[in-house]
Amino acid sequence: KTPGGLGQELEISWLLFVFFSSDIEISRAQSPKAVDVLAKEIGLLTDEIEIYGQTKAKVRLSLLERLKDQPDGKYVLVAGITPTPLGEGKSTVTIGLVQALTAHLDINSFACLRQPSQGPTFGVKGGAAGGGYAQVIPMEEFNLHLTGDIHAITAANNLLAAAIDARILHENTQSDKALYNRLVPVVNGVRGFSAIQLARLRRLGINKSDPGTLTEEEVSKFARLDIDPSTITWQRVVDTNDRFLRKITVGQANTEKGFIRQAQFDIAVASEIMAILALTTSLQDMKERLGKMVVANDKKGEPVTAEDLGVTGALAVLMKDAIKPTLMQTLEGTPVFVHAGPFANIAHGNSSVLADKIALKLVGETGFVVTEAGFGADIGMEKFFNIKCRASGLVPSVVVLVATVRALKMHGGGPNVTAGAPLKKEYTEENLQLVADGCCNLQKQIQIAQLFGVPVVVALNVFKTDSVAEVDLVCKIAKQSGAFDAVPCNHWSAGGRGAVKLAQAVEKAARQKNSFKYLYSLELPIVEKIRIIAQKVYGAEDIELSLAAQTQIDRYTRQGFGNLPICMAKTHLSLSHQPERKGVPTGFILPISDVRASIGAGFIYPLVGTMSTMPGLPTRPCFYDIDLDPITEQVKGLF
Amino acid sequence: KTPGGLGQELEISWLLFVFFSSDIEISRAQSPKAVDVLAKEIGLLTDEIEIYGQTKAKVRLSLLERLKDQPDGKYVLVAGITPTPLGEGKSTVTIGLVQALTAHLDINSFACLRQPSQGPTFGVKGGAAGGGYAQVIPMEEFNLHLTGDIHAITAANNLLAAAIDARILHENTQSDKALYNRLVPVVNGVRGFSAIQLARLRRLGINKSDPGTLTEEEVSKFARLDIDPSTITWQRVVDTNDRFLRKITVGQANTEKGFIRQAQFDIAVASEIMAILALTTSLQDMKERLGKMVVANDKKGEPVTAEDLGVTGALAVLMKDAIKPTLMQTLEGTPVFVHAGPFANIAHGNSSVLADKIALKLVGETGFVVTEAGFGADIGMEKFFNIKCRASGLVPSVVVLVATVRALKMHGGGPNVTAGAPLKKEYTEENLQLVADGCCNLQKQIQIAQLFGVPVVVALNVFKTDSVAEVDLVCKIAKQSGAFDAVPCNHWSAGGRGAVKLAQAVEKAARQKNSFKYLYSLELPIVEKIRIIAQKVYGAEDIELSLAAQTQIDRYTRQGFGNLPICMAKTHLSLSHQPERKGVPTGFILPISDVRASIGAGFIYPLVGTMSTMPGLPTRPCFYDIDLDPITEQVKGLF
Repeated sequence: KTPGGLGQELEISWLLFVFFSSDIEISRAQSPKAVDVLAKEIGLLTDEIEIYGQTKAKVRLSLLERLKDQPDGKYVLVAGITPTPLGEGKSTVTIGLVQALTAHLDINSFACLRQPSQGPTFGVKGGAAGGGYAQVIPMEEFNLHLTGDIHAITAANNLLAAAIDARILHENTQSDKALYNRLVPVVNGVRGFSAIQLARLRRLGINKSDPGTLTEEEVSKFARLDIDPSTITWQRVVDTNDRFLRKITVGQANTEKGFIRQAQFDIAVASEIMAILALTTSLQDMKERLGKMVVANDKKGEPVTAEDLGVTGALAVLMKDAIKPTLMQTLEGTPVFVHAGPFANIAHGNSSVLADKIALKLVGETGFVVTEAGFGADIGMEKFFNIKCRASGLVPSVVVLVATVRALKMHGGGPNVTAGAPLKKEYTEENLQLVADGCCNLQKQIQIAQLFGVPVVVALNVFKTDSVAEVDLVCKIAKQSGAFDAVPCNHWSAGGRGAVKLAQAVEKAARQKNSFKYLYSLELPIVEKIRIIAQKVYGAEDIELSLAAQTQIDRYTRQGFGNLPICMAKTHLSLSHQPERKGVPTGFILPISDVRASIGAGFIYPLVGTMSTMPGLPTRPCFYDIDLDPITEQVKGLF
Repeated sequence: KTPGGLGQELEISWLLFVFFSSDIEISRAQSPKAVDVLAKEIGLLTDEIEIYGQTKAKVRLSLLERLKDQPDGKYVLVAGITPTPLGEGKSTVTIGLVQALTAHLDINSFACLRQPSQGPTFGVKGGAAGGGYAQVIPMEEFNLHLTGDIHAITAANNLLAAAIDARILHENTQSDKALYNRLVPVVNGVRGFSAIQLARLRRLGINKSDPGTLTEEEVSKFARLDIDPSTITWQRVVDTNDRFLRKITVGQANTEKGFIRQAQFDIAVASEIMAILALTTSLQDMKERLGKMVVANDKKGEPVTAEDLGVTGALAVLMKDAIKPTLMQTLEGTPVFVHAGPFANIAHGNSSVLADKIALKLVGETGFVVTEAGFGADIGMEKFFNIKCRASGLVPSVVVLVATVRALKMHGGGPNVTAGAPLKKEYTEENLQLVADGCCNLQKQIQIAQLFGVPVVVALNVFKTDSVAEVDLVCKIAKQSGAFDAVPCNHWSAGGRGAVKLAQAVEKAARQKNSFKYLYSLELPIVEKIRIIAQKVYGAEDIELSLAAQTQIDRYTRQGFGNLPICMAKTHLSLSHQPERKGVPTGFILPISDVRASIGAGFIYPLVGTMSTMPGLPTRPCFYDIDLDPITEQVKGLF
């Protein structure tokens, strides 16, 4: 804020520091304030937080009740253009923006981020706390166990998986009567149904509560779920990059009596329970969603749910703390919620509705909540609007669209960008033609946001190799393409100060008249909803359904799930289904190879090609550089 | 403390309450004090704790340094006679005893307990927080995620497992040169070894630090671990009762190029990392132990370690918070450490050395630390002395041996006791003959404790069906058999007040001259150490080694692991290897079917029969009764 003088010197020393510092060194150089101090600053009462160590706290949902009459703040989504495989810095923009708003412009703000998966932290990707001078700190807490939410999801997910196979085994090896006697045992001389069993009886249309009065047929109906093993869609998960679990055979011990089957493990964040955590609005709602999860079909083709397996309550118990968002802080001491981190392909890739809702109350009417969507805007933003905003009822004020000169050059015809390999000279030297040609992707993504009636501010994440002419060119084209404004950002090297212009533009854009609307009506047939997204968002000529996809759509429609929103599982590396097609591909037919459903989370997900749900470890994983100093207890090598 | 009057009334209302209350209702009826208040009461400084919610805190190891000149308190082990499958109440005695010492006799004390595995909580067993009026509260916190230690173990264990299979795949599909180039890449124009790679070079006898100078042979030696897949002993784990993972085939996806193999998942607490957590004495020591873990042999028969895989630092990072014990409280507000919970068969079944060490400093010279050993004294206590006390260097003052009239009757020839089935009348009606005949097991277990030179106090855990004559008989025989004292305990129905006599007896016994000694010298050959345990502790005539066992013993001896202590994996339901042989079996030869090793934890474990390391779910798992009230947020159905 002090032009020249100390401020300037600080900037220079910061910049020097950046050149010689890794993200974790920058993170460590700043001592975070105690989380109870932060909680007080933002207006939380003592009994509304549950502290986890010095720098993390869970926030109780009771807050929503206390603040229910408080008006919401402005709701800002950070999305991006179609990225290179290196990512274009949505997380750092999100953090830089709130640092600018609160630490530099004195406007209340909150960043709401996804919790990163721990698996990739030790594989290829490294951490995900932002970077440079726009970070969540301490970054090792952010990147490791955090407050255990993903572990809770893993436990709940795998309890349900174990229950499915065990139930099939028990049904296959016992008579109706033996099954029934075990399911409804005599305890202390009394025989009774548990609450969840009574609920199942009611669903089966058996209005009885005395176990002795069921007919033989009713006993069989009650005791047998009759799961068709070939239809099981519920997979086990681990939060580890374990490629050898991508396809496995289970049940090969003698004790499982030959009931082997092929199965797989997914990475934990791919669990439907993660998607539920991200979309739920209350404990009651979460419990209902957990119960509704469809895990398989029975032999008649009817869905079998977690509730049918009697496990809803146990899943809710395992998730009772995970439902509370975790409070942390940015490098400049502004508040952050970290909560949920669903996959951006088979799920919707956005942080939690609950964190956003609580944050919108806490910042107050003139404050800002900045949240991030995974992948490019064609995927993450579209799902944010059509799935997440529908679940929450919240109305977004502004979209911040992150672009880089690097990604635009790629869209303009620059050579391949691959992780691990050095960048070609096209990316490190000025090349205005490539930039100009690549801006078509930026323009298209702006137009996609405009389909939803929300103003767009383009944030150009500036790298030190970008020329002034390149930066100016992007901003000019962005504004010509319909952006409300377009600003270069230097948050990575300068923290919030480097994003002050962005913050001012966002603040101004948020004052625009809002005409937010969804892209499609839920009442349309599943195929129609898929076609609308493919054509209007991706620019496809049409869609093409495989036989499997058509069969599944018919089944879900028949089972009563036709009115759910659509969550496309498509590559993020192109607007089309072909990752190598950059810029704005046209004239393609989008192939839908299969269609699946997350009924508890509440969406249908069509597969556009194959999606890997389990990353692997490379020859030299990140963990070679990760270490713990046993004396100082400091973590080294996370980045 | 008030004879008659209010105290008496309280007792009556408590007793009535017990009849109508489940453990969780009793737990909930008592509001725990805030954990920071508890921490202050026991002398912890503000920066020595990390609070997790309202009722749990992790305690920093820096405490040990601050209190290093403080003399230790008295160290009490709670062990048991050979139990029925229902368990005889070691946990409740442990908690009742500290409640009596501190809340009723004003003597500083600490209970150190194992963290229960979450899997069985939803399977057959239910919770493990003690019971009745001798509980750790809140019991749902104790029984569920706690502070995430088991989740951290799972993450570390599975990262190592994934690293093994991925490494084999990468070695099998790349030339020496390609492997080396990936393991030691050029980064920003510079090529260098990481710290863990330099350490490997030194182990291989290659004293070079410039990657360009290695000979072809050295490159190959460095880059290839050459793991023999058939020798892999490192298994994946989950904290879920998932029987279908007992035997599986992994690597069946096309991306793994046909490198399938048979593997298994164990329950998380069976991980060697759990045993390490229980035995480690510092962060440095933990890191060394993690690095030393042997996961397989190479094709020449040499051990391959976690350190060879380059993953030591990452494992330590994942475990950096788990190493800190968790502070909780009993129903009467006295302090408890919950830390580590290794299997009592393939591991040593005792809570952590670090928790005991910290607690011994905190209680001061006249205080008491009460810790518990798994299974019967022949297993848990023997391992406590020979393995845990060796790792810690701590000297136990007293053994409390828990017995029940029920278990003694079983040893005296009473009918089978099975979980889930109602007890036969022999167990609910007075039967002095069965009790007298069964006391042989009690006598033998007392004698086992005396082998180690430690005084024994017998704690008879009284049930409401036990007659006065039965109780008196047991106490009389116990004292005749060499116990320092024998006292009936009513902590389950009366809390600490019900264990005051036990506390007084323990206090008196602790003043005895201590002549603690280990049972065997580490320098003896592995076979000799096994034979000493089999003969002196179990009462076997001799041992009989299978060919596999002999081969493994020879291999471990050759590999330099012959001087480790022995951790017998034997049934806890009999002093012999045959669970149906009750009382004091004689004339048996103990068969050793196989021998394995946990080199990081630091013990060799001979298998006496097959040990299941993965429990299953029954037809009607506990989870049918577990539920969460979405309004009050209360957990129902845990017991």
